[in-house]
Amino acid sequence: MTARMFEQLAALLLQHAPGGAGVESRLHAALRQAVGTPGKLVRAALVFEAARRFGLRRADAGRLACAVEYFHVASLVLDDLPCMDDAMLRRGRPCIHRQHGDATAILTALALINRAYALIAEALAAQPRTVRAAASAWVDQSLGVAGLVGGQAWDLAFAGTDRSARTVGRIAAAKTGALFALAVMLPATLARPTPVERRALRALCVYWGQWFQIADDLRDLLSTTFEAGKSTGRDRLLQRPNLAHALGPAAARARMARLHRQAARILDRLERGGGRRWRHLRAAGESLAQSLVIRHQERNAA
Amino acid sequence: MTARMFEQLAALLLQHAPGGAGVESRLHAALRQAVGTPGKLVRAALVFEAARRFGLRRADAGRLACAVEYFHVASLVLDDLPCMDDAMLRRGRPCIHRQHGDATAILTALALINRAYALIAEALAAQPRTVRAAASAWVDQSLGVAGLVGGQAWDLAFAGTDRSARTVGRIAAAKTGALFALAVMLPATLARPTPVERRALRALCVYWGQWFQIADDLRDLLSTTFEAGKSTGRDRLLQRPNLAHALGPAAARARMARLHRQAARILDRLERGGGRRWRHLRAAGESLAQSLVIRHQERNAA
Repeated sequence: MTARMFEQLAALLLQHAPGGAGVESRLHAALRQAVGTPGKLVRAALVFEAARRFGLRRADAGRLACAVEYFHVASLVLDDLPCMDDAMLRRGRPCIHRQHGDATAILTALALINRAYALIAEALAAQPRTVRAAASAWVDQSLGVAGLVGGQAWDLAFAGTDRSARTVGRIAAAKTGALFALAVMLPATLARPTPVERRALRALCVYWGQWFQIADDLRDLLSTTFEAGKSTGRDRLLQRPNLAHALGPAAARARMARLHRQAARILDRLERGGGRRWRHLRAAGESLAQSLVIRHQERNAA
Repeated sequence: MTARMFEQLAALLLQHAPGGAGVESRLHAALRQAVGTPGKLVRAALVFEAARRFGLRRADAGRLACAVEYFHVASLVLDDLPCMDDAMLRRGRPCIHRQHGDATAILTALALINRAYALIAEALAAQPRTVRAAASAWVDQSLGVAGLVGGQAWDLAFAGTDRSARTVGRIAAAKTGALFALAVMLPATLARPTPVERRALRALCVYWGQWFQIADDLRDLLSTTFEAGKSTGRDRLLQRPNLAHALGPAAARARMARLHRQAARILDRLERGGGRRWRHLRAAGESLAQSLVIRHQERNAA
């Protein structure tokens, strides 16, 4: 992603955020912090590029990108709560609930989720009914009990499971995979993918999700909180699923390399079948890999 | 509302609820409890009747009714959390978080909110773009920082305000009024109300919302927890806004009578202007008043 694109997306996140004159001051401050401290914006960029490619106007592509990012930020704010991961630090700053209280953190997440749905409705208002129906079904599936919410429930229940690498992988697919699936599938509905393409895209999301999750788990396992900019070591402490821990760091890195190859094969297949229309995914994958390689090198240098 | 209608709506709430084979057991149990212990279903009935009257198929009217009820239930589950009202009892049973933990309670609310948005999209999929846009804007406004979420933030910040009856009334309008506004305005978008009608409908929601809130506040002030079936006396304890406390019980009852008259005048005006198309609101108002009269009599008998 270019620096210009990052800045544009970061500005849109502030522009579309819930707010206004009458908002209570703690909620206002928490919302500003939540949307004003962007992460890498990997998902937002992915959505924006794809939505533009598939014919959405610039303003509507921005709305769709912000919606997916708001869902992501809301999930981070809630995951950090004392009753979930009880984290201290996020993106180099004290977590929302540490600064503004648990209740305000919950309200912040709800306000972002509410706005995200409104932005999706606006962005897709002119689309034919089949596209809107597919998009809505994807959001339902990605965020609900079959996706993010369900994955988080399994995450919390992990201590009582068999704790196998297989179970850990399933939870990662539901949790991290869900938001990648949304970032890929939501704009892809505009292109009306064939059933074969849809299956390939879903597989890609699974590989990317696991890949990203292992990188995150390695970071939790190996980095210090200072390096990561968020609370680390939480997984072991809280008996949470951690693929790097379940597999061991070396096997985890090998798994990442395999996932990278699997994702590359899917991208080849999509390009052979659909020509140029899926090419943006290759660039997205490269930018994702780049961000993970950087982390990996940081780790080796440390 | 007839007993038959109540039973049909209660069955739909279970039918449309998020769930399925792979849902983690605590989340599954919490969701069953949340949707399987219905309240009076005042809002759901209001939405269903209006949606049918304005031409929605029975199945879609049911979806819309369930959506509004899920938003309502989600708000109750979150309001009861330790960081909000720290309640023990809801609808005669221990609160969701008391039985299943805070994290599961939050995930339950998120799953219901997610499903509610999907149901609205399904119910309105065949509607023209203007109707869909108006509906989406109403949901955004009713639930976001300008509505339910914003009202809850002011509620929590109440101890630091001037605590006047005026402030209490404003918070009540944002919190309770918001869900009434959604229950009235969401189906009303199907009828494409004129600007004059829209203003009248909004005023009706404000009166109904305050009316309902005062009844609830009187209950918190005067009932025992056993009578109410939910934790009472919380407002005073937590320094929360309570109109019955701010005005005194006698003045609160007088205010309720005035709000009733104001709502009746709006209903007269709507019927004079729009003929039969708003008549269902009179029945809804009567059923609302009936439920409040019953409570009031219970109180006098006690």
